[in-house]
Amino acid sequence: MSKFATYTADGGTFYGAVTEGGMIALSPTFKEWPDLRAVIEAGTLYDLAVAAKDKPVTHPTGSFRYDIPIANPEKIICVGVNFPDRNAEYKDGQEAPPNMSLFIRFARSFTGHERPLIRPPETPQLDYEGEIAVVIGKGGRRISQTDAYDHIAAITLCNEGTLRDWVRHAKFNVTQGKNWDNSGAMGPWLVPFTSPAQLDDVRLTTKVNGELRQDDRTGRMLFPIRRQIEYISTFTTLVPGDIIVTGTPTGAGARFDPPRFLHPGDVIEVEAEGIGKLINTVQDE
Amino acid sequence: MSKFATYTADGGTFYGAVTEGGMIALSPTFKEWPDLRAVIEAGTLYDLAVAAKDKPVTHPTGSFRYDIPIANPEKIICVGVNFPDRNAEYKDGQEAPPNMSLFIRFARSFTGHERPLIRPPETPQLDYEGEIAVVIGKGGRRISQTDAYDHIAAITLCNEGTLRDWVRHAKFNVTQGKNWDNSGAMGPWLVPFTSPAQLDDVRLTTKVNGELRQDDRTGRMLFPIRRQIEYISTFTTLVPGDIIVTGTPTGAGARFDPPRFLHPGDVIEVEAEGIGKLINTVQDE
Repeated sequence: MSKFATYTADGGTFYGAVTEGGMIALSPTFKEWPDLRAVIEAGTLYDLAVAAKDKPVTHPTGSFRYDIPIANPEKIICVGVNFPDRNAEYKDGQEAPPNMSLFIRFARSFTGHERPLIRPPETPQLDYEGEIAVVIGKGGRRISQTDAYDHIAAITLCNEGTLRDWVRHAKFNVTQGKNWDNSGAMGPWLVPFTSPAQLDDVRLTTKVNGELRQDDRTGRMLFPIRRQIEYISTFTTLVPGDIIVTGTPTGAGARFDPPRFLHPGDVIEVEAEGIGKLINTVQDE
Repeated sequence: MSKFATYTADGGTFYGAVTEGGMIALSPTFKEWPDLRAVIEAGTLYDLAVAAKDKPVTHPTGSFRYDIPIANPEKIICVGVNFPDRNAEYKDGQEAPPNMSLFIRFARSFTGHERPLIRPPETPQLDYEGEIAVVIGKGGRRISQTDAYDHIAAITLCNEGTLRDWVRHAKFNVTQGKNWDNSGAMGPWLVPFTSPAQLDDVRLTTKVNGELRQDDRTGRMLFPIRRQIEYISTFTTLVPGDIIVTGTPTGAGARFDPPRFLHPGDVIEVEAEGIGKLINTVQDE
């Protein structure tokens, strides 16, 4: 399976194909598409795969740094709690909501693969949330569930890092706890979406220092990805490069008693079958 | 006072200076700054004012259509209910919140001055919220209240149109009710911010079909604009062109009993001293 990443090397930003030995730079070849958002807008991920075939590695492992795959999406929309309760941890006497909770994150709240999540001095409550993210290829409004998958160009992973106390800082909304600079991560790369099996029932896990904390399957989502695309596109026009972060399983640090927040040096691994593994450490600002 | 707008004419998009008789196009002169966000990033609103001096109108009234002043901000952050209760309408037995509520809107949820707010077929609960918006000039993180005004380049008006039932569609968050395409408006223009008096205690009103519905002064804000910039920049880096929509007075349609939502043909006027008047009608999609 082809994989495409955005990365920094030699003081510049590139996109290219990911191989065992490193990156095959493709952005120098395709100047008409300055970044992966432009590639997706042009619908040419496949051309990248063809171009990368049999090309040598231009940036070997160790000579580059991963960036988030799409640095400049028009929007990043996140779906709130989206997996059923496994251990009564979410039970609060309320019925399941009829609609999904949505919030928005800015691209600058994410860092790339193998880079540290930043814990700010204002709060020690940095928490992890492993998720699968889908990248819109074909835009649209009022997209039906039947057609929804036709609008996905690629998939990736997300650690939807959250400053827990700032999520409930105000009367409503989670905006501020979800938008600290570099508090989450996205990547490592984009995997082109070519088959429903890549999303329909995929295992998604999060480990902290090797300990399994989140473990569920996309087949158990309360609001499946098809429904997410239908619902979101009811009110807003989706455009190429938009990212939907599809919701995290139970098991985030805040749900333990006492809570198990992240500390400098911790290693968080978000993994999904067929996509890969997003690895980040934690660093104090 | 100079005023600058983004507008569409002759099939193209321009920015220019606003005069009694129409627009003086400036974007053809300043090609190095393709849009008003770039002008603000370059810190050259003053240069526009100088360039417009004594120039003739290029697009007379009637030959152009207002767009939102900045089409492509990195972020639009909105402050929730931010004025004290005048008529017990917000009393719900709760203390005033310690921090402001924040939510995010996409630029595509706004239309320009003198263009219709769009009421979608999914809900009849389109409501108005008159607000003042500030445009960040100098970016920064952890900006102090003392310095906050130095980071504002310009001010404008906003009708923060809301689909009320969709605001409470899910367990938390107002994202979906605040982000319907073209459900709100911004403009008509940017007024350069040069003096604290332009924001400190300004009267802000909203009329529907000539009837005064909202009427308050920025001096009564629960969270003053200086505090908004301080608080928001605690977690996210503000960049030039970012917009903060600073909160609406009491008196939105939802607060009446029965609620007074907007209908096709209604005329909504949001007005603030020293900025101007943002006028929109309503149209069914």
